[in-house]
Amino acid sequence: MAKISFASDYTRGAHPKILERLMETNLQQNVGYSQDDICKSAAEKIKKACECPDAEVFFLMGGTQTNQIVIDMLLKPYEGVIAADTGHIAVHEAGAIEFSGHKVITLKSLGDETDTDRFGSETGKISGKGLRNYLSSFYRDENREHMVFPGAVYISHPTEYGTLYSKKELEDISAVCREYKIPLFLDGARLGYGLMSKRTDVTLKDIAELTDVFYIGGTKVGALFGEAVVFTKGGKPKHHISIVKQHGALLAKGWLLGLQFDTLFTDDLYFEISRNAIEMAELLKERLLENGYELFLDSPTNQQFVIVDDYRLQRIDEFVGYSFWEKYDYASSVIRLATDWATTKEDVDALMQYLHSTDW
Amino acid sequence: MAKISFASDYTRGAHPKILERLMETNLQQNVGYSQDDICKSAAEKIKKACECPDAEVFFLMGGTQTNQIVIDMLLKPYEGVIAADTGHIAVHEAGAIEFSGHKVITLKSLGDETDTDRFGSETGKISGKGLRNYLSSFYRDENREHMVFPGAVYISHPTEYGTLYSKKELEDISAVCREYKIPLFLDGARLGYGLMSKRTDVTLKDIAELTDVFYIGGTKVGALFGEAVVFTKGGKPKHHISIVKQHGALLAKGWLLGLQFDTLFTDDLYFEISRNAIEMAELLKERLLENGYELFLDSPTNQQFVIVDDYRLQRIDEFVGYSFWEKYDYASSVIRLATDWATTKEDVDALMQYLHSTDW
Amino acid sequence: MAKISFASDYTRGAHPKILERLMETNLQQNVGYSQDDICKSAAEKIKKACECPDAEVFFLMGGTQTNQIVIDMLLKPYEGVIAADTGHIAVHEAGAIEFSGHKVITLKSLGDETDTDRFGSETGKISGKGLRNYLSSFYRDENREHMVFPGAVYISHPTEYGTLYSKKELEDISAVCREYKIPLFLDGARLGYGLMSKRTDVTLKDIAELTDVFYIGGTKVGALFGEAVVFTKGGKPKHHISIVKQHGALLAKGWLLGLQFDTLFTDDLYFEISRNAIEMAELLKERLLENGYELFLDSPTNQQFVIVDDYRLQRIDEFVGYSFWEKYDYASSVIRLATDWATTKEDVDALMQYLHSTDW
Amino acid sequence: MAKISFASDYTRGAHPKILERLMETNLQQNVGYSQDDICKSAAEKIKKACECPDAEVFFLMGGTQTNQIVIDMLLKPYEGVIAADTGHIAVHEAGAIEFSGHKVITLKSLGDETDTDRFGSETGKISGKGLRNYLSSFYRDENREHMVFPGAVYISHPTEYGTLYSKKELEDISAVCREYKIPLFLDGARLGYGLMSKRTDVTLKDIAELTDVFYIGGTKVGALFGEAVVFTKGGKPKHHISIVKQHGALLAKGWLLGLQFDTLFTDDLYFEISRNAIEMAELLKERLLENGYELFLDSPTNQQFVIVDDYRLQRIDEFVGYSFWEKYDYASSVIRLATDWATTKEDVDALMQYLHSTDW
Repeated sequence: MAKISFASDYTRGAHPKILERLMETNLQQNVGYSQDDICKSAAEKIKKACECPDAEVFFLMGGTQTNQIVIDMLLKPYEGVIAADTGHIAVHEAGAIEFSGHKVITLKSLGDETDTDRFGSETGKISGKGLRNYLSSFYRDENREHMVFPGAVYISHPTEYGTLYSKKELEDISAVCREYKIPLFLDGARLGYGLMSKRTDVTLKDIAELTDVFYIGGTKVGALFGEAVVFTKGGKPKHHISIVKQHGALLAKGWLLGLQFDTLFTDDLYFEISRNAIEMAELLKERLLENGYELFLDSPTNQQFVIVDDYRLQRIDEFVGYSFWEKYDYASSVIRLATDWATTKEDVDALMQYLHSTDW
Repeated sequence: MAKISFASDYTRGAHPKILERLMETNLQQNVGYSQDDICKSAAEKIKKACECPDAEVFFLMGGTQTNQIVIDMLLKPYEGVIAADTGHIAVHEAGAIEFSGHKVITLKSLGDETDTDRFGSETGKISGKGLRNYLSSFYRDENREHMVFPGAVYISHPTEYGTLYSKKELEDISAVCREYKIPLFLDGARLGYGLMSKRTDVTLKDIAELTDVFYIGGTKVGALFGEAVVFTKGGKPKHHISIVKQHGALLAKGWLLGLQFDTLFTDDLYFEISRNAIEMAELLKERLLENGYELFLDSPTNQQFVIVDDYRLQRIDEFVGYSFWEKYDYASSVIRLATDWATTKEDVDALMQYLHSTDW
Repeated sequence: MAKISFASDYTRGAHPKILERLMETNLQQNVGYSQDDICKSAAEKIKKACECPDAEVFFLMGGTQTNQIVIDMLLKPYEGVIAADTGHIAVHEAGAIEFSGHKVITLKSLGDETDTDRFGSETGKISGKGLRNYLSSFYRDENREHMVFPGAVYISHPTEYGTLYSKKELEDISAVCREYKIPLFLDGARLGYGLMSKRTDVTLKDIAELTDVFYIGGTKVGALFGEAVVFTKGGKPKHHISIVKQHGALLAKGWLLGLQFDTLFTDDLYFEISRNAIEMAELLKERLLENGYELFLDSPTNQQFVIVDDYRLQRIDEFVGYSFWEKYDYASSVIRLATDWATTKEDVDALMQYLHSTDW
Repeated sequence: MAKISFASDYTRGAHPKILERLMETNLQQNVGYSQDDICKSAAEKIKKACECPDAEVFFLMGGTQTNQIVIDMLLKPYEGVIAADTGHIAVHEAGAIEFSGHKVITLKSLGDETDTDRFGSETGKISGKGLRNYLSSFYRDENREHMVFPGAVYISHPTEYGTLYSKKELEDISAVCREYKIPLFLDGARLGYGLMSKRTDVTLKDIAELTDVFYIGGTKVGALFGEAVVFTKGGKPKHHISIVKQHGALLAKGWLLGLQFDTLFTDDLYFEISRNAIEMAELLKERLLENGYELFLDSPTNQQFVIVDDYRLQRIDEFVGYSFWEKYDYASSVIRLATDWATTKEDVDALMQYLHSTDW
């Protein structure tokens, strides 16, 4: 591992308060499989934070697992899920959706059709209009019985490119879903970083209202692991425990999931630590721009995409962790730098120093 | 939760040394997906403990998940896995094996065919002889192309009834597997409790030699979660990370798995804490027999099956956690009591007191 | 191929009237995928024959395909199907049910628990009582969320052993299914031979009333191929064409299925040719008993199971096709002899002559 | 059904020689499941026609079924199949590939990126260059273990747009497949019409040499149903019968498949009747152009795509069967007209008359 890493938002353990709570409760005995009181308490706090008292909440361990299981819960066996072609389920889940028998029906993501070199701030998103076009065209097609029926819509917020939907955009997508009676599922693996962005008008309550199911990411936002699934309109399937178990995803010591979310949703910890990532990302962006770097796209969240000369990248390689994204031109590349709940001003300073050291 | 629970061996958190290590390393940055150095160190220690330097080791989160993934790795799509009809994969995994497309081909477990009321100490096991009968009969069957080809053999050790294979019995099963070129997979969810039993001649090295793949259970033996999969004869598939990801089982902060096993396999901690469970089980058994209780079967490990009057069960219900197993006769039931790495003499005393309190 | 075969009931092409109709209509143009008028006509005739005007009928190509698709239509992804352990789906479909993700939950079939050597006339069947026991025990089990939920019941009539349910027995099973709100599916691959048995009180109407879905076998009863699926209580899923297509089972020239069933259900042809198989089976049985053969079990349909000396079997091997069933004792075996819609008295005579030739 | 139909190439029964042979052999007894001599004979004739004596040949019933099974045979569970985004498996098989757990990895098809309104003659194809770009980019991607590994390449020839690969183009694709050790699978549902095109330099032998597996379509080329799968380089999996059975696709009276291909591959019947479709398509195209119609794309095979005024389409609707393809502009549409082995000059005349009748 390099001395300092911005490679992802899951490079460290958990927020210290979570570990403290782990220590305190370690020798208490609990019933298994998330049937315990800590999970119940966490679920209540989440429902309150969502202002959605009738929500049904349960916990899973990771993002791909959650996407696979929730989508399998939403779809009939012959249905597929609509997603942006840049969506995590379409690209980076090793076929987990297809493994459970479902097609990912891709819509071209916005923002990459311009004639400029640069990706736009719409990258990674779909639009209500694009969705309606797809659905109306599907239902007009005489051969649709030979095609995969669209049974759910998947969006990620923030997207894989750090971009965000506006409230209006979410309302548009939600309206189309309701018109076509298709559930809307929002992947919130980095939801905290979206909600705390300085450029968003979307609240947690909005998300609960506009989606049918979404999840609040813990793995990337201060937990050791864990995602909180929230069914907002009563759609949690009967026997959801059996479904989770059948997918090999039922944690024996399920209270560990509850304990983490219970801590994160006490005294707004989840939001507070998410804010830190945003502030550090803003600082990072500022420092990069000051130093003449060019951003690949304008991300309002904790993932920043920046263009760096290849010779410089080679030099920092053993000191700084980053994610290679793609080649930009013959002599430079796009890299992703992610801040998180634990990133400090000192980390940003160190990064800038490595980038600008004259000691090479 | 009752005041004290013997309901399972996964009612508490982790051995304190694991939590200490979690605290120490919490803010260190690691690469994800078990590609870190802690996982490498844990794998090396496990290979050493198995005296199997060429073993390939990786980590998963829970037992059903591990069974599902390993079996899917071993089988061709048209093959099934042979197991005792009492095997965990046949009964208590909500169809996780079938979910990945494979049949569980069941052999009648030993020990339940006697004409007595009592289950025998063979319960939960299969035999080399029974396995050979099945396989030779299958390969003589003219219609075998219309049947499910047996592609792997699954045994659990200890079994779901706490019973153990002798070394000779494992050798017999292993010999049949080699004769038919079928890999042998051993579910070691409670392996430590089997190895530390006072009535076993099977060592970890024996298991590594006699099986093709097995796993060392962490969830039930002192870890928060985690199972260490050991391929002993080079059978780990290419791209195992993709397969794990496709099953939704790739932990982002994979070092958490390595860290737990690295701790458990330092200074024989795994064996030491397993021995505690055995000693407490022996004490429990002694105390039960002293007090006139009848054992349902004679288990040499940490799970004890005892017959208790129903009126007594009702009275202890709110004070003592236990697993209801089955009705024994009109007025009594079989319950399972499990000890674990953390069970104390005081716990056993408390249990006996609840059972014998005259205060009811 | 031997000179004459009783190996199965699908050794010849189709009833001549079907071929005639094929010839007549060969150059007519039809719409594909069973959306044509011939399929509609066939469906109407079948509904009439079932006295079930609200039934929904569609056609598939073969037995295993039909079992796989219908069961997949009936079950939720986490559910399994209950069947006798001798059931075709449990033994001889190469894991087609598990391929679509579902467990076959087996009940011990009746008739093989006696202490005699001989299988009884109940072999291959389940009982309402056994079914209720299973279901009530399942729903009492505290761990049922970790098990496979029973989502449908599969029976075959005639069974794989040629045996038949009485009307009372079907009513019992049906009542349990309704009590537990589980659909009852009857595999009628050889239905004609069951309905025309001289020892049955079950009519086609009874079957339509007592089941939720069943199929009328064509492949084994005079068609080139084809099975007619009948949903009797409105349960045919929306978009059944997509489901069939997804399973790779949608015949482009679907009218070929309709044409065959339209012919078979004109002027009672299906029943008439089924009666021939029964009469020939009765004649065969009579001749076998006259000649001192012992029946393995007492089958009232077109499959007869008889015990034959191995030396005799060897001698007839190149002249007579039969199905080896199992070894009976060291010197003799059980074979199955099947008659069908095309078997003649001359065929039976020829068989007996081969068996009794003194020319060996 | 309209009086005359060009809606598809599977509107009629079978070539009369097939029906004759069905009649002749109808009462002969055969062993089931394609283990009979007729299937063996057909396989030999096909191997000869392919000039590939070591090929392994077996038969299935329809195109989607064949695509699903062959692709499942080629791929490891975690692999996907590469196809043009217009490919039949990507669009019109109701998710049959995903049903068996595999992702269809789509490459943008050629010929639809021009700035003209018209689709080009490359539509529906992929190129060796595009394929290499995808594969080299995939194997450079650091995250590829989180993606779906490409395990086979699927092309259709003719494509879904009637277009054809040149020999050079097939060689290019084949070379990339060999470089990356990925099998090449060619969907020949309409292969006869491709081979008999007046504008092709590709022979059946070329296809056998350049692919690893392909199929020769019967359903659309003169058979009642049936596709002949040809593994050209020894890749047919062990136990292919079990795999076919597991997919619900094993025809009991398998000789019906052999009989049809044996007839089609006697005296070049397959090629002769395919030539008829091409000649009729050429005549149709000529007549359409003479009459001022505009072709949507330039297809060298039996599927022709023509632009027709909507008012005219409405008028012919009850007399002429056609496939609506897509809207062309506000007042006209693209339709597909397919000729086949049975189309006559009179059919073409009738079509033109309906189109140009002044009697409306």
